[in-house]
Amino acid sequence: MVEIPDGHPRKASLMARQRMVEAARMGLLAESAMIAHGRGEAYDYLLGERTIESASRAISETAARLHEAQNPVISVNGNTVVLAGKDLVRLAAIIGCPIEVNLYYRTDERIGGLLSLLGEQREEVASDFAPSGWVGDWRNRVLSVPLLGSEPDGSISGLEGPRSLCCSDGIERADVVLVPLEDGDRCEALISLGKQVLVIDLNPLSRTARNATVTIVDEVSRAASELVKSASEAGSPTEWDNELCLREALSVISDAGSLI
Amino acid sequence: MVEIPDGHPRKASLMARQRMVEAARMGLLAESAMIAHGRGEAYDYLLGERTIESASRAISETAARLHEAQNPVISVNGNTVVLAGKDLVRLAAIIGCPIEVNLYYRTDERIGGLLSLLGEQREEVASDFAPSGWVGDWRNRVLSVPLLGSEPDGSISGLEGPRSLCCSDGIERADVVLVPLEDGDRCEALISLGKQVLVIDLNPLSRTARNATVTIVDEVSRAASELVKSASEAGSPTEWDNELCLREALSVISDAGSLI
Repeated sequence: MVEIPDGHPRKASLMARQRMVEAARMGLLAESAMIAHGRGEAYDYLLGERTIESASRAISETAARLHEAQNPVISVNGNTVVLAGKDLVRLAAIIGCPIEVNLYYRTDERIGGLLSLLGEQREEVASDFAPSGWVGDWRNRVLSVPLLGSEPDGSISGLEGPRSLCCSDGIERADVVLVPLEDGDRCEALISLGKQVLVIDLNPLSRTARNATVTIVDEVSRAASELVKSASEAGSPTEWDNELCLREALSVISDAGSLI
Repeated sequence: MVEIPDGHPRKASLMARQRMVEAARMGLLAESAMIAHGRGEAYDYLLGERTIESASRAISETAARLHEAQNPVISVNGNTVVLAGKDLVRLAAIIGCPIEVNLYYRTDERIGGLLSLLGEQREEVASDFAPSGWVGDWRNRVLSVPLLGSEPDGSISGLEGPRSLCCSDGIERADVVLVPLEDGDRCEALISLGKQVLVIDLNPLSRTARNATVTIVDEVSRAASELVKSASEAGSPTEWDNELCLREALSVISDAGSLI
């Protein structure tokens, strides 16, 4: 990897880009994954590469809803694992829920590669310090996070072909799904099954952002890190006005015009 | 390639994405090219995937300046050749200038691959109809467009290493450079050599966009197609207010907020 100086104002963004390039070399990503990442970079640039206030509120709401859920699950794709895998393992450990690798362009090779990377990340997180405020055996808690996806024995009604596959112990039975970086079709399908769909999406105008129950308009690694903090001190779900949240994000993007 | 229905509202964008994926498979693109393309997709989405009015004016200005130049050149990278190669060959034929393949991440393989693709595009354009209004032997005119880049015998002062290389008959001696999709460092270096730098950049806040002489805030294939039309009926250069042009593009992006 190229060394990026600590003081570089866009270090986090450039490091994320390098991780994506490495992961693509390793065959972990779909061909369109880099394009999706680039779109995210552009929106994040307009947001100022920071977690905006409305995103912080969406993060708290998401943490609260995961805590209240009967059967929560975190659904991840390649970009998510590469950029935010470790923090999502932490989050799953705090919540006590499985992580399911679920890909729009599903191949057994990529599912296998991502589960293996997640397994390494789980091992690293288990050996790390527990999040502040955690009481109990952190290592065992982390190692007991189920990593699903290799044997999809369920399906998402309303979708067809490989993209409808999911796990019965994961997405199929879940009442609340945290699914960073989901595509519009699947977000709609999950919503119409009556599930709460909590997403992380940098484009406040995307179909996913507009259809989700709660939309965190933020870069996935920043959001995941904040979700870990929020989950350790989660409150109760509120009456959530997602459209208001999206409007606030758009207004920040619009204000980017004042930079020039 | 996947078939995209004619009626699809985002057909052009999805076709462009497929061409990029194909070109990446063929080894014609740098690893970060797909990320750059994705950033472009995001900005274009906010622009409404159309050539906005201020971009049309920048296109006319660019055509006029290319016509007036003593030694104009069109500098292209991988993304540009893949997305807009044929129209830039048409433009070079109308203007009567060379095209130079000039890469930020230069490798002989990619230079060779892109020159070979440009050669095929030149052959196709030569066999095509001449642009309306063209008088003369179009086929010979097109086939005489020099395709430079394989033997970089010049350099761009102010840059170091492989990215400083260029051709003495191309960028080095040019007074006016049309360089779609340029990076910020090189745009600044070319400007400080006293050249006019005409760019196509979807991010009106980028360093390139802000430093260029004329910035066309538009998607490269749409802009190239409009440049061909403008070049056939080019007027004279004006006193160009590039900052005004960028402000207008930003205001369109800001108004994307009204879509929700």
